[in-house]
Amino acid sequence: MPKQVDHDERRRHIAEAVLRLASPEGLDRARLRDVAAEAGISLGSVQHYFRSKDEMVLYVVRHLGKRVTERILSGMCEAPGTSRVRSILMSMATEMLPLDDQRRAERRASRALTARAIDAPELIEELRQGDRWLHERVMELIEQGRRDGELRPELDPALEAVALLAMIDGLGGDLLLGVRDPGETLAAIRYHLDRLGPP
Amino acid sequence: MPKQVDHDERRRHIAEAVLRLASPEGLDRARLRDVAAEAGISLGSVQHYFRSKDEMVLYVVRHLGKRVTERILSGMCEAPGTSRVRSILMSMATEMLPLDDQRRAERRASRALTARAIDAPELIEELRQGDRWLHERVMELIEQGRRDGELRPELDPALEAVALLAMIDGLGGDLLLGVRDPGETLAAIRYHLDRLGPP
Repeated sequence: MPKQVDHDERRRHIAEAVLRLASPEGLDRARLRDVAAEAGISLGSVQHYFRSKDEMVLYVVRHLGKRVTERILSGMCEAPGTSRVRSILMSMATEMLPLDDQRRAERRASRALTARAIDAPELIEELRQGDRWLHERVMELIEQGRRDGELRPELDPALEAVALLAMIDGLGGDLLLGVRDPGETLAAIRYHLDRLGPP
Repeated sequence: MPKQVDHDERRRHIAEAVLRLASPEGLDRARLRDVAAEAGISLGSVQHYFRSKDEMVLYVVRHLGKRVTERILSGMCEAPGTSRVRSILMSMATEMLPLDDQRRAERRASRALTARAIDAPELIEELRQGDRWLHERVMELIEQGRRDGELRPELDPALEAVALLAMIDGLGGDLLLGVRDPGETLAAIRYHLDRLGPP
């Protein structure tokens, strides 16, 4: 009987190798043979799971998106506190920001993936779906906060979600570059979330 | 007598060639010989003005920063309207966002330059200086708006400036990727600026 190989496990293993190889300047230098070497498997094995580099990159985008999403969701469930919606949004922001080595590596890889996406429609569609999911979660939270009296009733949930997610994204870029430090970054988000509450 | 060459004009000409060659994935593929070909001059001539690729990239970062800065400043002077500070900030945001071909090309090039900067301290210092300049201008405007009664007196100018610039940066990235459209982007900024005013 042939050895059972967990195909999805193997694909995830290869995706992790791609993430380690992705430099902030992109994925251009990560050839399939480099990925194979990094993953410690043969080139043929990589080609068995991914027919092309584009197919591999699409998988990596989904893999990374899923990992960050799971962290955001678990952060949303665990966030304690009196002002619940704002705690959840703060915890979400913290999960998305490059504040430790793992999240820094994720952000570097994500930069490489989005750079590649600028001229690749199928990757853009994948990123768009991820963005839509996140935008809807944030919008629902803001609606809930308005209903519960935790947030100002006059807030526009859709535009607040666009503004908050863009702010987190911009601050993440500044952090990665070292243009801003973690203290300033978190203070700006906390300040912004505070203003969403009733005076 | 040797022909007079305007050295700075020549450097700017080379910088423009680099900007045209910069892809969103970086500057890796733009070798000095490619830059020479794009600028329509000899490799020796490029090497006469820039001793290394790093020196060239640093110049290009300054050149691009100066160009955007000049546009922002002229936008600041021209912005009309009753709510002056918010008009100025709106016009600044518009100048920074990739809303037309030129600004789209600038944003792509800027992505390539910042990707390179992540592991290059001297480039980071240059970007940090640019950010500091912009942050101070926005802070001054917010202080002025508070004094004039155009903006809420309880605003924290330093944190407002961090939040607004991060938001513009994040929205710019979304626009470049096509994750958000210009209408939604400008609506989010307008909505945010509106809330800075007195109720």
